[in-house]
Order: sequence, then C-alpha cells, then structure tokens
Amino acid sequence: MFQLHPQLAKDSFPVTNLSLSRVILANDARFPWIVLVPEREDLVDLHDMAHADYNTLAREIRSTSKAMANLFSADKMNVATLGNMVPQLHIHIIARYRNDAAWPGPVWGKGTAELYEKSAAEKRISDIREALDSLNL
Amino acid sequence: MFQLHPQLAKDSFPVTNLSLSRVILANDARFPWIVLVPEREDLVDLHDMAHADYNTLAREIRSTSKAMANLFSADKMNVATLGNMVPQLHIHIIARYRNDAAWPGPVWGKGTAELYEKSAAEKRISDIREALDSLNL
Repeated sequence: MFQLHPQLAKDSFPVTNLSLSRVILANDARFPWIVLVPEREDLVDLHDMAHADYNTLAREIRSTSKAMANLFSADKMNVATLGNMVPQLHIHIIARYRNDAAWPGPVWGKGTAELYEKSAAEKRISDIREALDSLNL
Repeated sequence: MFQLHPQLAKDSFPVTNLSLSRVILANDARFPWIVLVPEREDLVDLHDMAHADYNTLAREIRSTSKAMANLFSADKMNVATLGNMVPQLHIHIIARYRNDAAWPGPVWGKGTAELYEKSAAEKRISDIREALDSLNL
C-alpha cells in the first residue's frame, strides 16, 4: 500500500489528489512550490513507472506546471525529480521569480526554509487546491 | 528556425538527435550528464509545448533516463528542467552516485566543472550515442 514518505510528510502540507499523484505544498514560504507524489509503491526513478502511469504523470506535470505558472504569475517554472535525499519518487514543481531568494540557482539546499504562518499556509493551499481541482486531472 | 542557445553550445558536446530533441553532453566530467533540447523555436516552459511534442519529449526523457541509468550503473537519476540561466527549454538527465562530487545535493552551481580530456569526452560521447541510437527514438 502506498504511504507518503515520512520526510515528505514532515516538510509539507496536503493539498489535493490527482488521478495518480498526491499533491503536497512544500513548507517554505519563499517559493510557491508543490510536489507531485505518484501513489504507487516502490517507485524510485521515472523509468520505474508502468507506461500508463508514466503517461498520466506526464499529463499531471504539464497541467499543474501551467496552473502554478498562471496562479503565481511565475517568471519561470522549475520541474525536477531528484530524490537524492528522499528515495520515494516525487516531482518538484516550483514557481520561480527573477527576484526570489535563490534565483538564478536552484532552490534545493539554498539558505533555510521559511516556514509558513498558519493563515498564509491555509490561503496558499486553498488557492492551489482550487486551481488544480478545476483541471479535473 | 531552431538554433541551440549559444551558452548550451559552449558548455557541451553534440551527441545525437532523437526524433524531437537534440542530445548534448554537459562538459563536466564529474557527472554523466546529458541535456535534451527539443528542436523547436521559442520554448521556455514545458507547458509551452504542443501536446504531440510534449508526449514525444516525455517518451524521450523516460527512455534516455533509463539508458543512462543502465549505461552508468547510476544510483539515482536526476531529471530536471530549470532554465533560470538559459531560457531555451532544456532537460537535464544526470546519472548520480552516492559518492559523487555533489551528492546528495543537486549538481547545478556545485563547485567548478571539470572539463573533459579530449579522449575521455570522445569515449563518453561514443558510449552514450551508441546507447541512445539503439533505442530508435
């Protein structure tokens, strides 16, 4: 049975579920940053996925990336699966700005996460949930 | 007409062409690291792509990632599109090892690239070209 990796659970808030992927919000208020986690056991790399699941994930990545770009008027989207620290397959989808805290570098390992205030987290989760749920993925 | 961004051209060697993407080898001998560049004009983000092209790219990403994992006996594949420095859409596909120069962090901006010796570059390009061309992508 699929279980979200404890480290991912610890560093995030639940947002919504797509047909394949669970969507979580990274607990770092510096960046509008969601993570897609395909709800399948024992996936590490993209090429571990069954073909049909991979096609679904590709569609979910494209649509959520576009939705995040629009919602946050991003200058650029960063989409990445690294998994060097947490082996469970997960895909980062991050709205970037030319004046954000890590630009033009990547966000990982840059400075210290600014944890969300409760109300800011609720607002952001609600905004993203509404945008993603309207996609009917 | 598609033209490879001059910064990508400067930091890489040509490897081969897939049906959509040009494949180049990043000139950093510390990591087996290729980059896919879809040969289309004016692409910045994944969601800028036409649907059919996006599906082709998704297939090319999956297959090249698997081929690189096998060829280099990688511990983990990192697959990412960032584009904060070079706006032309390009996808990094990097074979990572638990003892490599950046583990467990990402490779971008970590230390200084170790440029390939000529013979080492030729060997690596030839190995990757052979592996990718056999996929008939």
